[in-house]
Amino acid sequence: MPTSQRTVCDVAIVGAGPVGLFSVFTCGMMGLKAHVIDTLESLGGQCTALYPEKPIYDIPAFPSLTAGQLIENLTQQAAPFGPTYTLGQKVSKLVQTTNHTWLLETDQGTKIEAKAVIIAAGAGAFGPNRPPLEDIELFENTHVFYHVTHKERFRGKRVVIAGGGDSAVDWAILLADIASKVWVVHRRPQFRASPESLHQLKQCSDAGTIEMVIPYQLARLEGSDGALTAVHVRTLAGEERSLNADVLLPFFGLSYDLGPLATWNLTLEHKHIQTNPATCETNLPGIYAVGDIATYPHKRKLILCGFAEAAQAAQAIRSYLFPEHVFHFEYSTTSGIPKF
Amino acid sequence: MPTSQRTVCDVAIVGAGPVGLFSVFTCGMMGLKAHVIDTLESLGGQCTALYPEKPIYDIPAFPSLTAGQLIENLTQQAAPFGPTYTLGQKVSKLVQTTNHTWLLETDQGTKIEAKAVIIAAGAGAFGPNRPPLEDIELFENTHVFYHVTHKERFRGKRVVIAGGGDSAVDWAILLADIASKVWVVHRRPQFRASPESLHQLKQCSDAGTIEMVIPYQLARLEGSDGALTAVHVRTLAGEERSLNADVLLPFFGLSYDLGPLATWNLTLEHKHIQTNPATCETNLPGIYAVGDIATYPHKRKLILCGFAEAAQAAQAIRSYLFPEHVFHFEYSTTSGIPKF
Repeated sequence: MPTSQRTVCDVAIVGAGPVGLFSVFTCGMMGLKAHVIDTLESLGGQCTALYPEKPIYDIPAFPSLTAGQLIENLTQQAAPFGPTYTLGQKVSKLVQTTNHTWLLETDQGTKIEAKAVIIAAGAGAFGPNRPPLEDIELFENTHVFYHVTHKERFRGKRVVIAGGGDSAVDWAILLADIASKVWVVHRRPQFRASPESLHQLKQCSDAGTIEMVIPYQLARLEGSDGALTAVHVRTLAGEERSLNADVLLPFFGLSYDLGPLATWNLTLEHKHIQTNPATCETNLPGIYAVGDIATYPHKRKLILCGFAEAAQAAQAIRSYLFPEHVFHFEYSTTSGIPKF
Repeated sequence: MPTSQRTVCDVAIVGAGPVGLFSVFTCGMMGLKAHVIDTLESLGGQCTALYPEKPIYDIPAFPSLTAGQLIENLTQQAAPFGPTYTLGQKVSKLVQTTNHTWLLETDQGTKIEAKAVIIAAGAGAFGPNRPPLEDIELFENTHVFYHVTHKERFRGKRVVIAGGGDSAVDWAILLADIASKVWVVHRRPQFRASPESLHQLKQCSDAGTIEMVIPYQLARLEGSDGALTAVHVRTLAGEERSLNADVLLPFFGLSYDLGPLATWNLTLEHKHIQTNPATCETNLPGIYAVGDIATYPHKRKLILCGFAEAAQAAQAIRSYLFPEHVFHFEYSTTSGIPKF
């Protein structure tokens, strides 16, 4: 049993994904000290756990950087403000103790006392949606992978990618030059991806570096001595094909679980926390939500919007904790800078 | 007289500041080709014209970069989408010609035809607020500067910085190590700057690298043979001090002029364009506004929010121009990617 610890901070940030990490910075700029808690053992949320090597293109002023670099940069940007972290623990309880104090408690008994809380929990705890294929678990993590953390692992392999969303399209493009063969299996010709990605997919397909297998669905896996030897696919009409692949990457999205958060009396809407778009405040005083977990009219789940929300929340928290100082920072050689 | 030119594009972007440049990228990701027009001769708006060497700290995943680097990166990020530029010209007219066509015309007769328009004009054309000091124009650009484009110019100089906002505070901190002497003249002890900047100002003041001259206002300039020799300051009570300075940097904000834009029948609110926060659409169909020039309830003038708006506007424009495709990008080896 780990020893029970108690941390005191201005703002407790639940979630160490990109928006949570940027919240450390935006709070820091407002003079607020942050403590971050995440269920994962490392910083970065899905960026680190699921696709550290995937390039991201929609971060302003980065023509391209990988998800791993993004997290490294955000961590470095937060560092001067001296954040502290509790990793590998899940916040299980959130209770208001006094007017301006909230007490968070993790599943391992760690206690964090904060004046305000920012929930940046993404979509909650996450796991892959598994395709319903017989014996798939026998091949998982050796021949079947639900996410790519080291793309070099697939060099020279024959890879079947299944799915029609961003992940399927983006990994197909990225693995086209690495794998010896890439098939993309999808049940219909429509993909849900950006026009630019679709354009590249088309180029790879025209160039023969990706073979489109449409309209097919995964039917069954064939193996020998614990190794995958073929992925069988089938049309709705029953026509079957066998793809002689070593690797299957099914990208059918993730399923999410809000976990204990759902019991904290926050006003939820379809597994998201309702916020005031001007302040990111939830229905509970001093509790804010930002990034993918927050919802308000016309909310867009873009990392960019999460970053903007992190700035809004920090300003709102400062205003909430120090109403008289917010738009009137005082400099004085006698009174010094505002004390917290 | 320049020859009259005509450019045809999907989206005309008015303003080549950071948010305008990022709009090129967000439009590109939506498959939309952009043309950018700016009154200045170079890309970057105020970032390039006023403070290219100033570090900016609130861009996500950049612990620090200069305004000039920000513009360089954003330009590079936009480049793959092949934007075209009309620089050094002011858009004077905006007229709808058909249902989905707008015609823009510059003061030099250049014509741009676009399916949609994003106005990212910041605060419009801008210039410094000049302090009302006798003969100040005699020292301008030699001893009096309203913005800093090359901070090395002030190495070893004795510099008076006047003002109480971000610019005054940030430049005081940055020049503390470069100038031989820095005074900060402000009429009251309160500054309008981030707590973090105020903290650094206090440290410099405590260390003696900046001398705070409070509560004083600029009174008059003293010169000899065209060179500034002293800046005289005075309290409201009439007490006067003479600061033996070579350089005066007055930071009293900028005055802005919307120019012809004010005549385009856009719904304005205190010199800003009213937009729908969900789509960045203005009152005119196909005309969008993003960044500092846009306003909506609880709008915050943060570069971060401008970036998020650029993404929203691009998505909204795609939805406006191709309603059937927006949430259903189609991949097909026979029909190819969506044509524009």
